[in-house]
Amino acid sequence: CRVMAWDTEGTRRRLKEAATAEFAERGLAGTTMTRIAARAGINKERLYSYYGDKDALWVVVLTDELEGLALAVELAGVSLEDVGEFAGATFDYHVRHPQLGRLLQWEGLVRGPAADVARRSAHYREKVERFAQAQRDGVLDAGLDPAHLVFALIALAAWWQTVPQLAEMITGASGDDVSERDRRRAFVVDAARRLTAAR
Amino acid sequence: CRVMAWDTEGTRRRLKEAATAEFAERGLAGTTMTRIAARAGINKERLYSYYGDKDALWVVVLTDELEGLALAVELAGVSLEDVGEFAGATFDYHVRHPQLGRLLQWEGLVRGPAADVARRSAHYREKVERFAQAQRDGVLDAGLDPAHLVFALIALAAWWQTVPQLAEMITGASGDDVSERDRRRAFVVDAARRLTAAR
Repeated sequence: CRVMAWDTEGTRRRLKEAATAEFAERGLAGTTMTRIAARAGINKERLYSYYGDKDALWVVVLTDELEGLALAVELAGVSLEDVGEFAGATFDYHVRHPQLGRLLQWEGLVRGPAADVARRSAHYREKVERFAQAQRDGVLDAGLDPAHLVFALIALAAWWQTVPQLAEMITGASGDDVSERDRRRAFVVDAARRLTAAR
Repeated sequence: CRVMAWDTEGTRRRLKEAATAEFAERGLAGTTMTRIAARAGINKERLYSYYGDKDALWVVVLTDELEGLALAVELAGVSLEDVGEFAGATFDYHVRHPQLGRLLQWEGLVRGPAADVARRSAHYREKVERFAQAQRDGVLDAGLDPAHLVFALIALAAWWQTVPQLAEMITGASGDDVSERDRRRAFVVDAARRLTAAR
């Protein structure tokens, strides 16, 4: 019946939200299925029956968060303006979704197989290929390796959330300060264009 | 007597090395004084008597690691070549000392007061001021905020160690591959120069 289906959907969603919050806070190794179920206020057996084990749930959470980023941040084209906006939108997304940066950091900090590697690699390689094509077409400067460039644009956009304490020491301003955040975003857009502009 | 003083020095060093390894692996919250003492093979009471509590030991470890970086990576001058070499040397240091990047990440991931803030801020602000002076002197392009620039140069140099799994997916190559590492370093040097070069 519909009410039951609705409940199932709601339960699944609550469990995944609790898992996302717990994993972002403590990492894969640092949290437990018990904690996640307790945070959601839902029976642990249902958590297992919906999502399998903790490793499988981690993959679901990370995949979902990365899909959110891919949907929100498009590389519309490969003009200098597009590249700048891609970096700026990536910056915005990481500011609004600090849990994504934390999940990626946990993934890097705690050795183990990365989640959903084939699909993520394909996603990135497609972006790299577009940059490479734009370089061949003379739209972007061809001096920098396109894969390193894509990686560097993400670094410029995401690093602020990765080491906020360092950003605060260097700039003397907090990332919670709206005008400083706007200045950081403008810097990211400008820096991305400088990296890709013909010399 | 001299033998005793030597032992004391050696014991202190072994304890600090064990603490550095443990903190880099598990973070401040994730490790215990018991683990650190056991790793060093030294009595826990001596650990407490030499270094105080866990928080104090964390500050000692992070401060020492950052001093190592500051000693190894100098900003010789502020020409484009100097800026490129500064970024390249920072990249090298993070490759050779992965524990430093991990300590900084733990510091950012697990909320709490950052260690040794006043001295570290002063260290960074001195670098920012040198960039600002070079911009006023017309040696470097004045279009980018000098504090944001210093932060971005560190991002370009350190991000590879922060999310090695991402670097591997995007480039299709491992950071353990020596020729890929050389290419990454060359990219970092070139990107740093492009960011600071006059347009």
